[in-house]
Amino acid sequence: MIASALMRRVCAVATLTLLAGCAGDTPIALKDMGSFHVGGREVTVSGKPTKEVVFTPGGVPARVDPNGVYQVEQMYVQYFIPARQRGSLPLLMWHGGGLTGVTYESTPDGREGWLNYFVKKGWAVYNSDAVERGRSGWAQFPDIWPAEPVFLTKENPFERFRIGAAGSGAYNSDPAKMRVLPGNQFPVEGYDNFTKQIVPRWTTTDAAIIAAYTALVDRVCPCVVLVHSQAGQFGLKVAQARPDKVKALVLVEPAGVGDAPTAARLKDTPIVAIYGDYIEQDSRWPQIKANGVRFLDLVKNAGGAAPEVVDLPKIGVRGNSHMMMNDRNNLEVAAVIQKWLEGKGLYR
Amino acid sequence: MIASALMRRVCAVATLTLLAGCAGDTPIALKDMGSFHVGGREVTVSGKPTKEVVFTPGGVPARVDPNGVYQVEQMYVQYFIPARQRGSLPLLMWHGGGLTGVTYESTPDGREGWLNYFVKKGWAVYNSDAVERGRSGWAQFPDIWPAEPVFLTKENPFERFRIGAAGSGAYNSDPAKMRVLPGNQFPVEGYDNFTKQIVPRWTTTDAAIIAAYTALVDRVCPCVVLVHSQAGQFGLKVAQARPDKVKALVLVEPAGVGDAPTAARLKDTPIVAIYGDYIEQDSRWPQIKANGVRFLDLVKNAGGAAPEVVDLPKIGVRGNSHMMMNDRNNLEVAAVIQKWLEGKGLYR
Repeated sequence: MIASALMRRVCAVATLTLLAGCAGDTPIALKDMGSFHVGGREVTVSGKPTKEVVFTPGGVPARVDPNGVYQVEQMYVQYFIPARQRGSLPLLMWHGGGLTGVTYESTPDGREGWLNYFVKKGWAVYNSDAVERGRSGWAQFPDIWPAEPVFLTKENPFERFRIGAAGSGAYNSDPAKMRVLPGNQFPVEGYDNFTKQIVPRWTTTDAAIIAAYTALVDRVCPCVVLVHSQAGQFGLKVAQARPDKVKALVLVEPAGVGDAPTAARLKDTPIVAIYGDYIEQDSRWPQIKANGVRFLDLVKNAGGAAPEVVDLPKIGVRGNSHMMMNDRNNLEVAAVIQKWLEGKGLYR
Repeated sequence: MIASALMRRVCAVATLTLLAGCAGDTPIALKDMGSFHVGGREVTVSGKPTKEVVFTPGGVPARVDPNGVYQVEQMYVQYFIPARQRGSLPLLMWHGGGLTGVTYESTPDGREGWLNYFVKKGWAVYNSDAVERGRSGWAQFPDIWPAEPVFLTKENPFERFRIGAAGSGAYNSDPAKMRVLPGNQFPVEGYDNFTKQIVPRWTTTDAAIIAAYTALVDRVCPCVVLVHSQAGQFGLKVAQARPDKVKALVLVEPAGVGDAPTAARLKDTPIVAIYGDYIEQDSRWPQIKANGVRFLDLVKNAGGAAPEVVDLPKIGVRGNSHMMMNDRNNLEVAAVIQKWLEGKGLYR
């Protein structure tokens, strides 16, 4: 038994040392990977007729009673724990609206995304699908949720995410004919594939999403939380609810903010907000960014750790769309985040 | 350059050798992991009024024109490529109805699932979410799809998946009060979590699902396809459409079958169907199983490789529910599949 335990330790140390020393050709070495669901609530539906459902053609009919207790508003989380952890805390990645955790996986043109980047750097990464999206499932409407979701056309994000030049005609189904902003780094040859990542989204589920993210934080934190776009609101509000557990916040183009009256709760939380290119010339982004900066100023005015704002073009990183984790220079942007985290003493 | 290339090779060989020798404590060593979407089609919606949508509270309203071209019926696929591949071909895992690729990830009570098992064995695994489920997204109804989906109560699968004894009252929200079938291996303490994995499902999307799986096979095969429940139909039909690409089929309690008139197309395909416990005493499963066996008999009668049927209780593996990849003895069942694949010369 002792020899066996010793051998296990020798193996573990030798393997990790070798993996580290051979980093150039290193496979992704994980101690563990897996998934779980967290949060949610039960809702009872009643007064509906029973149905017979043939789930599979030629199958055997099953009686389905739509009355009963439903599980709703849970959230899916997938995790990757590196064999050699160098991030001092787990890194939680929360995607933006109409999307899922796929945001951080391979880019739409098939390159490595931020998930692989941070796992390879040695961060234990928890990548989730917000409530009602992807593997989190969604609740029936109007029986449980009052409203229907919003669906996006293939064209919709093209200008709204600052890939194409504003004005009709920027989008074209042929990438060669897309009118992109000058120097734009979004891999337009993968735009069609990007639209396959888009899922229906509600605008009425924020409270449920925040509840599930809070449950996640209670389960796996202390941690660092990295959010994108719509999740700006979620990251800030959950950090305000759990300032002892969210030890740093990376806000990638937050589209929403926290609760202004209690902004001071974040005064000791290291926060960085990162913005890409073409903000000033856009019809909506100057105001979206101003909203974010105004909220961070409230935090700053409370004293403590002053939130930082990074305009990528000002540090020489140019051409980034709203989907900077997908852009051609996505790993350059990831390196900016990595360096900031190192500067906050969150990496060993 | 030569020294560098040599060093890379030394590192690769040494790392893999060490990982193999230290298998007991081995991290999961991946050459790559990532995801993509495949398949789908474009649909045009017209004649609807434009809306203003505030996506995030306090955000800037965006004009959303619901008219236009939508991407629908694509499919999400996540892949894990081991550093040391021992499976001769990629292994594709297709989940059952109302579920997603989560089926093969961690069990509902937090143990390792079949995804980790087969990746650790050295199989390149492609785990997907069928069209309309999970990260594949879904299309609006009734504008694009005619019908609404089916939602399942928490109680519904408890008897239908042969966890609980038939008859009202078997399910209880308290695991201690659940009336399970004698010796049942489903981890009932995780049943609540299992219900969080359930997503809405349509009964009208089979053709779209088959099209997407066929596109996946065209992209990554030759391969082995492992299917569960509803995907029995999909695995068999796609294999019939691509007998040159689907080199072996593992049918885990298939709930649907292939196209009978062209069953002979599968005569050279190694096929095994695996059934769990409590089949005979169930109200639906004797017929579901008989349907599967009858189809496999059609294949067998065409000559060639005779499909095999494994009744787990007959080989001493007892207590399995329909969710055998979640059951307490899930890795024992996985080992039955692994051994069968080895016997077919698909493992090195």
